[in-house]
Amino acid sequence: MHKDHRSECVINLTVEIFGDQWSLLVIRDIIFMNRRHFRELLTKSVEGIASNILADRLQRLVEQGIIVKSQDPSHKQKAIYSLTERGIELLPLLMEMAAWGQKCLLASRLRGLAQVLQEGGPKLRAEFMSELRETHLGKSSSPKKTRRPTKSTRILAVQKIRGAYEKALAKRK
Amino acid sequence: MHKDHRSECVINLTVEIFGDQWSLLVIRDIIFMNRRHFRELLTKSVEGIASNILADRLQRLVEQGIIVKSQDPSHKQKAIYSLTERGIELLPLLMEMAAWGQKCLLASRLRGLAQVLQEGGPKLRAEFMSELRETHLGKSSSPKKTRRPTKSTRILAVQKIRGAYEKALAKRK
Repeated sequence: MHKDHRSECVINLTVEIFGDQWSLLVIRDIIFMNRRHFRELLTKSVEGIASNILADRLQRLVEQGIIVKSQDPSHKQKAIYSLTERGIELLPLLMEMAAWGQKCLLASRLRGLAQVLQEGGPKLRAEFMSELRETHLGKSSSPKKTRRPTKSTRILAVQKIRGAYEKALAKRK
Repeated sequence: MHKDHRSECVINLTVEIFGDQWSLLVIRDIIFMNRRHFRELLTKSVEGIASNILADRLQRLVEQGIIVKSQDPSHKQKAIYSLTERGIELLPLLMEMAAWGQKCLLASRLRGLAQVLQEGGPKLRAEFMSELRETHLGKSSSPKKTRRPTKSTRILAVQKIRGAYEKALAKRK
């Protein structure tokens, strides 16, 4: 580990992984838009990611253990990307980035998403992470809890977040 | 604004500014180590930043309104860099990066810093941001408050944080 990294500072290690113009945007699309296939990550990209860059970043994220690539059970020819627990744990970081961008850069268009994230606070974040664990890891995230939240509660976080995101994106057109 | 940015998503806008291998490390050194002069940012850099890259990143951060460059009152020949409010607001983001790195990459050496940041929670973060405002903006951050925290309280956050960081770095040697 020592020789491969510039330093062992945890902030540096994180920058080494995400310090580029695309990785976190790919993660963002997987987390918030549930884009799981190469083609939709490519064609629906708002920022217009190039095919070779997307392929490279996905491979690097797989190598870092942030996503896994597997065969899509519903389309045998297709690969599907899923977040690992490590990838799901990036949600708070993305939320801080959104909060900072919203507060300090005053971007107007995605106000909806940033607002929903901020107003939802730790509770919405926890609910959303729990939903991501079910979707990507295929398991309930809180084995200690005997009672799972009701379906309506579970759907709420992702609906709120994705709804706000899509609404904001729609304004662009 | 529209034409200069790939999209107006607040996460994208933030990635456009900090999506490189060095910007956030420069911010980290200013925030946690109070390095305010070019030379100390250069020579004390744990990651060994190159002089031309440091100069470029400082200039970009100035252009983005994240830091300001001014004449150091105590050394007339020297320039001193100070965080703006926008720069101070990056602390929560850096703390999330540290938390993620600590939790998901299991780096052993800077455990001290990540631990102090995590255990201190929102209170330590607020105290430290308040101190950064005094140091960099030269003003009390809470004009509405009539009572300022006592000096011993104010020193606590920066001492805790910097102490843990230096201790962790010292272990490297």
